[in-house]
Amino acid sequence: MSGREPVTAAVILIGNEVLSGRTRDANLGYLAAELDVLGIRLKEARVIADDVAAIVEAVNACRSRYDYVFTTGGIGPTHDDITAAAIAAAFAVPLCRDARALALLRRQYAPQDLNTARLKMADIPEGATLIDNPVSKAPGFQIENVYVLPGVPAIMQAMFEGLRQRLVGGARLHSRTISAFTTEGSVAGALAELQARHPVVEIGSYPFARGGRLGVSLVVRGTDPAAVERVAEEIGALVRDAGAEPMDETIGRDAG
Amino acid sequence: MSGREPVTAAVILIGNEVLSGRTRDANLGYLAAELDVLGIRLKEARVIADDVAAIVEAVNACRSRYDYVFTTGGIGPTHDDITAAAIAAAFAVPLCRDARALALLRRQYAPQDLNTARLKMADIPEGATLIDNPVSKAPGFQIENVYVLPGVPAIMQAMFEGLRQRLVGGARLHSRTISAFTTEGSVAGALAELQARHPVVEIGSYPFARGGRLGVSLVVRGTDPAAVERVAEEIGALVRDAGAEPMDETIGRDAG
Repeated sequence: MSGREPVTAAVILIGNEVLSGRTRDANLGYLAAELDVLGIRLKEARVIADDVAAIVEAVNACRSRYDYVFTTGGIGPTHDDITAAAIAAAFAVPLCRDARALALLRRQYAPQDLNTARLKMADIPEGATLIDNPVSKAPGFQIENVYVLPGVPAIMQAMFEGLRQRLVGGARLHSRTISAFTTEGSVAGALAELQARHPVVEIGSYPFARGGRLGVSLVVRGTDPAAVERVAEEIGALVRDAGAEPMDETIGRDAG
Repeated sequence: MSGREPVTAAVILIGNEVLSGRTRDANLGYLAAELDVLGIRLKEARVIADDVAAIVEAVNACRSRYDYVFTTGGIGPTHDDITAAAIAAAFAVPLCRDARALALLRRQYAPQDLNTARLKMADIPEGATLIDNPVSKAPGFQIENVYVLPGVPAIMQAMFEGLRQRLVGGARLHSRTISAFTTEGSVAGALAELQARHPVVEIGSYPFARGGRLGVSLVVRGTDPAAVERVAEEIGALVRDAGAEPMDETIGRDAG
C-alpha cells in the first residue's frame, strides 16, 4: 500500500422504515459503490431510527473517526423529519432559517403553497453549506465533514452526483474476484498462507449458494494493480489445486 | 401503548463485502421483518468491517443497550472469519475448542477433510450455547443476549428459524399504510396535528418516486389495533382534503 493514509467514510441511514422491515434500503449499496470509485473506503454504516438522541450519538461517533460522513433521510417537511435539528444539536450550533434555502423554496413554490411545513426545509444548522437538489429543490447541506442527503434514492443520487467534485478520495482499490464451486474449508489453509505472503493486498472469502450449489467468491483488493493481478493468478492456481474450476467474476470497472 | 417496556434489538452485519459495494446486503431486510413479527423492535443496525476492534466495539455498545443483538457473518473457516474470536474478546472470555461443535463437524466431514481450517469452526467463546445449523452443520452460538449467525442468507435464515422459540417478544406493532400521489408538504401540517392528538401511535411519512411520479406513504404503527385503525381512517380523510386519492397499501400480515 502507498504511504498515504486511506481516505475513510461512514454512512448513516436515518429512518424507521428500514428498521421496521417495511422497505429494503437502496441507499447503502449505491453509496458504497460510488465511494469505492472515488477511492474513499466505507468503513462503517449504521441504520438508526428517527430519534434525535440516536442521530446525535451516531453522527458524533462517526464524524470524529472518519474523513467523511454521509447521512440519508429525515430532511423533508413532515413532523418525523428531524435530521437537520439533530445535526445542529450534534454540532452544538443553532438551527436557523437559511436565506439561500428560503430563496430556493420561493422559486419552487407559489406563495400560498409555501406553508409552515415546507418552510421547515429552509431550517439549516448555522455554518452549513447547501447541497444542490436538482430534482425537488429543497437542499441538503454540508457541515464540516458531514453531508446530509435525503432518503428518496432518486433524489439522493442526483444530489450525490452534484457533490462529487467536493469529495477528495485516496488511492483507488483495485480488485479481482475469482469464484468457484468449492467449499471455503477446501481452500482456507492455502488462502491463509497466500494472505500471509502478500500482506500488501487484502483477500476476502465470501461463500454463496446459487441454485442450490454452494460456492465461494475469493476477492483480492489492493492499491497496487500488479500485486492484485499476481495474487489473483495464485488464487486461480489454488482453486485448481482444490479440484475446482476458477471463474473470473471481476466486475468490469473494478478490473485491476 | 401498553405499560410493558418494548423488547428491543440491534443487528450487526459483519463483512467487508457490503461496505465495498461488491454485494448488496440481504440479511437486514429479512431480520427486520422477522423481528417485527416476533414483537421485537429493531432499533439499530450496523454494517462493520472484518476487524476485531470494530466488532468488539459494536457488540459491546449494542449488547448493553438492547435486549437482543444478532450478528451475521465471519464464522466460517477462512482467515478473514474472525467473529468468534472477536465475540470472545468482547465478553472477555477464552475462545475454546467446543466438544459439542467438534462432534457436529466430525459427523459432517470425513477425517481427512476435517482440516485445521474447518476445525476452527468448532472454536466457540466459553459459556456460549450452540445454534443449530440444519444446512451445513457448522453451528452458530449464543452468548448472553448476543446471537451469532453466518452471513450466507439461506443458511442464516434456516438457523434463525430454529432459534425462534428462544426469542421472547413484546406487544406486536400493528400497522396500516396509506399511500397517495401527493406531496409531503401538502399533508405535513395536518399530519403533525394528527400525531399530536394521537401520541399512542407513531405516524411516519415516506416519500417515494414511482415511474416518475412523486408520492408519499403514510404509515401508522402502534400496539393497539383499534387506535391504529382510527388514525388510519383519519389519514385517509386528510389525504382527500389535500385533493388526492388514498390507496390502502397495508401489507397483508401487518393488517391491524
